[in-house]
Amino acid sequence: MNTQISPEVMGQLEAIVGPSFLFLDQATRREYGHDETEDYVFPPAVLLKPGTPEEIASIMRVANQHEIPVTPIGGRTGLSGGALCIFEGIGLSMERFNKIIHIDEQNLQVMVEPAVITQVLREAVAEKGLFYPPDPSSQGSCFIGGNVAENAGGARAVKYGVTKDYVLNLEVVLPNGQIIWTGANTLKNSTGYNLTQLMVGSEGTLGIVTKIVMKLLPANQYNILMLVPFFDAAQACEAVAQIFKAGVVPSALEFMERDAIDWTLRFVEVSVAIKDAVQAHLLIEVDGNYPDVLFAEAEKITQVVEQFDIDDILFADTDDQKNALWRLRRAVAEAVKSNSIYKEEDTVVPRYELPRLLTGIKSIGQKYGFKSVCYGHAGDGNLHVNIVKGDMTDDAWTTEVPKGIREIFELTVSLKGTLSGEHGIGYVQKNYMDIAFDPITLQLMKGIKQVFDPKGILNPGKVLPDRV
Amino acid sequence: MNTQISPEVMGQLEAIVGPSFLFLDQATRREYGHDETEDYVFPPAVLLKPGTPEEIASIMRVANQHEIPVTPIGGRTGLSGGALCIFEGIGLSMERFNKIIHIDEQNLQVMVEPAVITQVLREAVAEKGLFYPPDPSSQGSCFIGGNVAENAGGARAVKYGVTKDYVLNLEVVLPNGQIIWTGANTLKNSTGYNLTQLMVGSEGTLGIVTKIVMKLLPANQYNILMLVPFFDAAQACEAVAQIFKAGVVPSALEFMERDAIDWTLRFVEVSVAIKDAVQAHLLIEVDGNYPDVLFAEAEKITQVVEQFDIDDILFADTDDQKNALWRLRRAVAEAVKSNSIYKEEDTVVPRYELPRLLTGIKSIGQKYGFKSVCYGHAGDGNLHVNIVKGDMTDDAWTTEVPKGIREIFELTVSLKGTLSGEHGIGYVQKNYMDIAFDPITLQLMKGIKQVFDPKGILNPGKVLPDRV
Repeated sequence: MNTQISPEVMGQLEAIVGPSFLFLDQATRREYGHDETEDYVFPPAVLLKPGTPEEIASIMRVANQHEIPVTPIGGRTGLSGGALCIFEGIGLSMERFNKIIHIDEQNLQVMVEPAVITQVLREAVAEKGLFYPPDPSSQGSCFIGGNVAENAGGARAVKYGVTKDYVLNLEVVLPNGQIIWTGANTLKNSTGYNLTQLMVGSEGTLGIVTKIVMKLLPANQYNILMLVPFFDAAQACEAVAQIFKAGVVPSALEFMERDAIDWTLRFVEVSVAIKDAVQAHLLIEVDGNYPDVLFAEAEKITQVVEQFDIDDILFADTDDQKNALWRLRRAVAEAVKSNSIYKEEDTVVPRYELPRLLTGIKSIGQKYGFKSVCYGHAGDGNLHVNIVKGDMTDDAWTTEVPKGIREIFELTVSLKGTLSGEHGIGYVQKNYMDIAFDPITLQLMKGIKQVFDPKGILNPGKVLPDRV
Repeated sequence: MNTQISPEVMGQLEAIVGPSFLFLDQATRREYGHDETEDYVFPPAVLLKPGTPEEIASIMRVANQHEIPVTPIGGRTGLSGGALCIFEGIGLSMERFNKIIHIDEQNLQVMVEPAVITQVLREAVAEKGLFYPPDPSSQGSCFIGGNVAENAGGARAVKYGVTKDYVLNLEVVLPNGQIIWTGANTLKNSTGYNLTQLMVGSEGTLGIVTKIVMKLLPANQYNILMLVPFFDAAQACEAVAQIFKAGVVPSALEFMERDAIDWTLRFVEVSVAIKDAVQAHLLIEVDGNYPDVLFAEAEKITQVVEQFDIDDILFADTDDQKNALWRLRRAVAEAVKSNSIYKEEDTVVPRYELPRLLTGIKSIGQKYGFKSVCYGHAGDGNLHVNIVKGDMTDDAWTTEVPKGIREIFELTVSLKGTLSGEHGIGYVQKNYMDIAFDPITLQLMKGIKQVFDPKGILNPGKVLPDRV
């Protein structure tokens, strides 16, 4: 690969996007050189802001010919470093692809460009009485294209699934500049290999998504939100599997450790009174169109959690209260970040294994001398583990913590789980991939990458480990 | 490829599976040489019935070394010829992989071997209060492994999704005899390329599935089933999209043309009185745990369909009545088959396009001189088109019908649909793949096939067109 771009090639790139959409200044390159992943900054040699799939195709043809790395950049909210330009080269900001092309009310579908902000999309379809469920915590700033790239989830995934469950068809620019559609605009499809699902979650390493066709659901009218304080964190985890066993599928089932909520209460203006002895909370939502059913389901959930050692359940009575509780939950990552340097892991296990995962993480932390704040989508078995630097020495942070992370992932995989539930592998987790997959399977993935990108120019150094 | 197997290699195969699981007699080979696809018979040179993944691995190593084609064979209910041994070689019957390994009531998951009959699986989990929704019409005899291979759907897909939406993780024997797991037993997974979803629907061309981990749902207790007779078939199709627009997601929404129901009534013992002028029926089910909600949803559906020209709605009052209506619906394909030589297409479009698809199919039939019987999962936009030979000449059947099928698929794709919703491409549809995908995309699929199966020995001559 060529990390340097010759003046001649730079001229070709400028001719493609126009001079106002090519940026060489340090400030812009630095701005686009980071996402939300720890404190990494990898600026591109040049930042481009193309406006059409055809412009991207032209850029890719030039990059392919000269073997220049190209890194697609979305909303830069990623937590695994998927958008970092680790080999410099071309940073390809997708931000001009920001149109909702068509909300198809007849077929309950939407065609959207990748730089539409997830919340904007959710609100636009809601205005038509429709529902796009995936709601990552960063929904106010992340791009739907990034959600596709990372197969993002969010709080509602427990009932409604993740991004992949809504993607029907994708327009994709391949690394060699060819443009394809991966499938059809249908709810069912058994026609050839599922390139659509292969593309979802491939973190911008196989192609650049330029249009997305997604399915929608009819909107729900009602929900009930309850916050359940537990005096024991492992019991909160145990309650999660019991709720499903009782036959209820909540629309959200979130877990927050005591530290997560304490740190966040200092960060956002939400007032919740919490007894000192409370160790964890479950935030539980049920939704639907029939209030009586929701009351019945909330009652079933109450019966389950009351078998554990809990404090009084808080039912959110108003929309304001609901919004406050969600703000609290969504701000945890930012709150931790504002407190300390940290690393965020995105462990996921079968949900009944959560108590074992949580206990194991804490004892691994003790062994290697780090503290962790755990929270996340417990209904999916998806536990975010924020490892905080606090007063650890730099030396311990760089030598001991990676060993601890490796043990956490080994524990996760031994519980039939895996490395990432919804954040992706990207740059920061790639060298743990050998824990989740044997060399044969990694070779298959590498083979697929080579089919799409024989020269290895598209988002290089991501997903697959350095040595495959 | 070697279609002939030397005595020495045959000895190696016998040593692997044991003499009682290797079959060379014509009757067995012929029996395993066909599925439910038209009247095709392609017997293997030898039929093997291995008992473990390791035996399959050993067989694949021998086959790979000697470049002998291997065709995995499941319940032989396929409608696209995916299990036909078109190059003879080894037929690999999976029938001994018939155990439900573990129903995990804590995590709402099941681990199952591929030769478990779908209905057996559904009933086994139902006994534990759990629900495996996909229910292809052949569920009484098809294998769950075949469902995975073809990404099978069924009547409940409209609300609950298809097979792919339940598969979490797969144990797979690769063409070179290596054994891998594709993912993890988790509801969410953003860890590397999605090999699980790539394997689902790949029709046994990339690997041989030996274990399947699937998610389950809590069982629903109630349902309401209604049969709505329409005096105009296109109006029945129009009503489908309107039902969703009214905010109801039925658990089944099936369409049957008049001919489909008439032929089937002669084939199964079910009594339904139908007025002469009725041209089509919708069979509509809603399900859930709250009878009041189901009554409300049935009422909403009634309000929608009453805007069209319909006869009296029949509500199934008893389980017997419900079973009779479902028997009627499920027997359509067999009834048509018993009446005439036929070809079955599995068209799928966005559901609002159904009236245009139906009208188009009829006029294409007139142009080429064939009659068709249409029915299927209208809620998904999935219309099965049975083209019946009736009194067509053999000459017209072999020359005109393929032209008509090509036009039907071109129409389907022009409506943003595709060739197959749930039956797969297999042998009989492969040379129509150029209608759904451009040469670039087909080359990507061929590249993926080569990554998994460089020698092209596993289920050769399926899915991809003869010329890519």
